Amino acid sequence: MGDIYLDNAAATRLKESVFEAMKPYFTEHFGNPSSIHKYGSQPKQALEEARKKVASLIGAETNEIYFTSSGSESNNLALKGAAWAGRKKGRHIVVSAIEHQSVLHSARAMEKLGWEMTVVPVDSNGIVDPGAVVDAVRDDTVVVSVTHASNEIGSIEPIADIAAAVKEKGVPFHTDAVQTAGVIPVDVKALGVDILSLAASSFHGPKGAAALYVRKGTRVFSLIDGGIQERGRRAGTENVPAVVGLGAAAELAAKEMDSRIAHVMPLRDRLMTGLEESIPKLYINGDRKNRLTGNVHVSIEAIEGEAMLFSLGAKGIFAASGSSCADKALKSSHVLLACGVDHSLANASLLFTLSSENTMEEVEAVLTAMPPIVERLRSMSPLWNG
Amino acid sequence: MGDIYLDNAAATRLKESVFEAMKPYFTEHFGNPSSIHKYGSQPKQALEEARKKVASLIGAETNEIYFTSSGSESNNLALKGAAWAGRKKGRHIVVSAIEHQSVLHSARAMEKLGWEMTVVPVDSNGIVDPGAVVDAVRDDTVVVSVTHASNEIGSIEPIADIAAAVKEKGVPFHTDAVQTAGVIPVDVKALGVDILSLAASSFHGPKGAAALYVRKGTRVFSLIDGGIQERGRRAGTENVPAVVGLGAAAELAAKEMDSRIAHVMPLRDRLMTGLEESIPKLYINGDRKNRLTGNVHVSIEAIEGEAMLFSLGAKGIFAASGSSCADKALKSSHVLLACGVDHSLANASLLFTLSSENTMEEVEAVLTAMPPIVERLRSMSPLWNG
Repeated sequence: MGDIYLDNAAATRLKESVFEAMKPYFTEHFGNPSSIHKYGSQPKQALEEARKKVASLIGAETNEIYFTSSGSESNNLALKGAAWAGRKKGRHIVVSAIEHQSVLHSARAMEKLGWEMTVVPVDSNGIVDPGAVVDAVRDDTVVVSVTHASNEIGSIEPIADIAAAVKEKGVPFHTDAVQTAGVIPVDVKALGVDILSLAASSFHGPKGAAALYVRKGTRVFSLIDGGIQERGRRAGTENVPAVVGLGAAAELAAKEMDSRIAHVMPLRDRLMTGLEESIPKLYINGDRKNRLTGNVHVSIEAIEGEAMLFSLGAKGIFAASGSSCADKALKSSHVLLACGVDHSLANASLLFTLSSENTMEEVEAVLTAMPPIVERLRSMSPLWNG
Repeated sequence: MGDIYLDNAAATRLKESVFEAMKPYFTEHFGNPSSIHKYGSQPKQALEEARKKVASLIGAETNEIYFTSSGSESNNLALKGAAWAGRKKGRHIVVSAIEHQSVLHSARAMEKLGWEMTVVPVDSNGIVDPGAVVDAVRDDTVVVSVTHASNEIGSIEPIADIAAAVKEKGVPFHTDAVQTAGVIPVDVKALGVDILSLAASSFHGPKGAAALYVRKGTRVFSLIDGGIQERGRRAGTENVPAVVGLGAAAELAAKEMDSRIAHVMPLRDRLMTGLEESIPKLYINGDRKNRLTGNVHVSIEAIEGEAMLFSLGAKGIFAASGSSCADKALKSSHVLLACGVDHSLANASLLFTLSSENTMEEVEAVLTAMPPIVERLRSMSPLWNG
């Protein structure tokens, strides 16, 4: 068996058909979409076709989609842009305790500039209580952000309920859907959100291509100023091939979503229960029911996450110990700590993220490989007294 | 003869060899550079090799290079990041009158947030006087930005003199080298700059890849917060293939720079003098001596720039009427107005930007095509009484 790649939250493999769609925009249609001649018109048209495909994926209007270079940029544009736009009303931001670093650190950057931030806690499954979000909203709150699903523990938040409650307070609501858009059904109207981030690299699209949905009428300042690209909301020459890839990946994800989900969920469930059955004192993190279709996040008592990763790597199995965006200097994930997981178990974490390209044979191979590795590492651990 | 592409300031053609260097990083080495396993290590190493090549192109240290997604993002990061970093010292920014929109609008965005901006004028050739820059610096100035060369009229500024004068005042100095890096020699130590922007698409590299040089010890706040990519200065999963392309294009540009310049300058000079000789009341804008090697910017009395472009396009010649990043709603270029060109001549502008891929045959074809088009358009113009 070849490599078993189970780190799809960090990066999914770019589909060959998506790359094929991108290719003409490198050396052939290389023009600047802003050029008002033949070399600009094909790239410009390609951007607008991609915009339609992205809008269609999430039930938005075409002119509500703004292209950016990464999910992190989308999250920064959402948080900082909405905060700046609302600065005359007030300077208070509400986020949940399990946001991605790009949301959390955007809010912290605004704190340095005089804003206040309230962090809403989560329960032990990482679920945010809509009531707690509403309680955190004040008269001077200008943006609320709760992730659609945790990139670490995979818990899916009750966004429609949270958005409805926040809407009553008249405050713009953003959700980071980087882990969900293109993976599970995401409809901005059904969710009732004002601003939403998504990224191509989560659904077999290219790096360097992401988008921000901004509902018509919602005010968001630009983060990158300059030319009038993206209707003035995001300056800079558009990365045409990457955006074309985002569009192609979005179209493919919409078409294949049901079959991808039907394929991957049984793999996730088998991996989750198989690990629980074969390894004592292994704990599943995150919500078991409201969970990303490809996420298996576990803590294994008396095991150091990175040691586990290296042992798995030696057997051709490639997973993660947490968010690939996390500060490696910080030992414990803020997400696990927010769920009440203690430090030693938080550092004993393994994150398997599956895509529809994985197979049941690969899952069985992981289930065969894991117990002896855990046993060997525990036999060397002073922490283990099983 | 095929198409004659003379809009290289808007976009250069991606070199096939650069695209070849990028290819393995799409579907094969698709991993996230932050992943601490085999799928992350090759992309991570590729990023660092690209960083070395970019550093080498401009005489910088490797760890002084930060990757971004566009020249505009680099300029925003420079201006806003330096302004935020200096906010306790003061809130005053100095820029020249012929900056790119991404510099000018970054400064304007800071104005909205309480900063003050001083715009230093230029002479009729678009040249900035170092003395005028120094005179504009105040005790509360936290960043000065003067472009290395105008993307419109092609004038090259005396950056070494300006930087030396600003350095004496102890204020960080940024130059937008998007039009020069990879095109003419750019050495950060010889120029004496603290911060410098460059972009791959100016030297036959890909879109979506740019960089900011930040001299060690210079403080710049991040624009995109989140993970610790780019040593905390620019969060977000790196666009690995694009960065690899930037590196490959930088290496190639360094190697071929002398021969590219030797090839393109005679084309530029022939086009410039040929147009002057064959078309009455045609004026060259910008400095004739200190000028980008591929820039020919003219104003043609009683001619509307866009009408001229369409007529040229019909003959397979593709040029521009000004900056591709400019607001199409604004009739006159702020750069030309700053040089004292009047509105009617500013709107009668044509911008030819050549690369080393152009040929003398193409230039001669343009020189043959232009006079009859000008004559025909003038014969229909109420403004023409030649």
